[in-house]
Amino acid sequence: MILSTVDDHDQRTALQNDPLRFGVGARITVAVMSDRYADIILGALDSVDASGLSVETGDVSTFVGGTERDLLRYLTDLSSAIADTGSHASISVLLSRGCPGEVVCELPGGAGPRAVEHPTGRDTDRHATAEWALYPLADEVTAGVEPDHMRDIYAAIDLAKENDTFRGSAHFVTRLEGDLGRILETAVAGWTLVGRSVQHVTSHLTVSVNSPSHAHV
Amino acid sequence: MILSTVDDHDQRTALQNDPLRFGVGARITVAVMSDRYADIILGALDSVDASGLSVETGDVSTFVGGTERDLLRYLTDLSSAIADTGSHASISVLLSRGCPGEVVCELPGGAGPRAVEHPTGRDTDRHATAEWALYPLADEVTAGVEPDHMRDIYAAIDLAKENDTFRGSAHFVTRLEGDLGRILETAVAGWTLVGRSVQHVTSHLTVSVNSPSHAHV
Repeated sequence: MILSTVDDHDQRTALQNDPLRFGVGARITVAVMSDRYADIILGALDSVDASGLSVETGDVSTFVGGTERDLLRYLTDLSSAIADTGSHASISVLLSRGCPGEVVCELPGGAGPRAVEHPTGRDTDRHATAEWALYPLADEVTAGVEPDHMRDIYAAIDLAKENDTFRGSAHFVTRLEGDLGRILETAVAGWTLVGRSVQHVTSHLTVSVNSPSHAHV
Repeated sequence: MILSTVDDHDQRTALQNDPLRFGVGARITVAVMSDRYADIILGALDSVDASGLSVETGDVSTFVGGTERDLLRYLTDLSSAIADTGSHASISVLLSRGCPGEVVCELPGGAGPRAVEHPTGRDTDRHATAEWALYPLADEVTAGVEPDHMRDIYAAIDLAKENDTFRGSAHFVTRLEGDLGRILETAVAGWTLVGRSVQHVTSHLTVSVNSPSHAHV
């Protein structure tokens, strides 16, 4: 996965500080279970403030690149706009940082982890349920930082308990439930926390809003 | 991630040969963009042969556990049943093997990779587009097997080129396009191929069927 190595401290710092070059971003798939899905999705996308972000809409997902804080704001605004319509919807989010490419990382190896404060979310007054997976992908020492992803995963779980979204484990995923904004906060914060010591971290979150089964599940 | 170590060869082989104990399975979220989504999803789930598989339906996704071959058959039958309705739908699939739990693996460390033939899919005569991510998660030597996930990822890409689903790279994912059944084959085969040398491998696939934008994208 390593194409070249960054030895220069200044170059490394520049990479870590530039969210787009470091590959900080999300892919978001919004699926609205209504005949009016196109109007609802386009209306929500149009209503959301994308300032500071690079946005590319595709037929499978929308790519959004930028800082962790701007991404959480965008995800929260977009998801709550969808939830506000009252339609049942499934929102799938892929978060990635530390590897702008896919099969082969384009980021020079040894860039090192990007350590930033995890962003704080907001209440949306919309209930949601979700399944969450968090993947630390490069477990070697980069730029002299010893990875400790279990410490950081437990810190993420602690945060999910504090904001009352943690509901335990299921096959392959962690179950989250609660305020939609706090669920998104949990996923973005966990991903950011693990990224304190691991360069390449991805996370996948599937959120269900306005589900007819929520009342009895 | 390692709770205990399996040193005994027979015990290791028994773990590798039991798909449920090895944690071979999928979580599937089907989102149908129609007012009739509940009837369509329940109808498709009821029509599919789940023999040989363990199925648990939840409000965010359906868990399916079993062999790679049975999983690919189930995924193909379910997705083509959805596509056959003509409704636009998004199908998200999480594939996992080698770690039945989530935050902390429940499988004793050192079980080693499960090496099986990658299953063959079938044509469905339904066009789809998809985004695919493949994650080798435990890169250490387990049970004496040296991981070589780049070799196996390239073997997966070669297979995607052979079955004409590979369309290149985008941010964080590989773009797949073509027959729905061949797209699912690519994802399941790639995940199985990387699993030849890596114990814990997950893969995420988001598929779009009957998209109004497919004609011009």
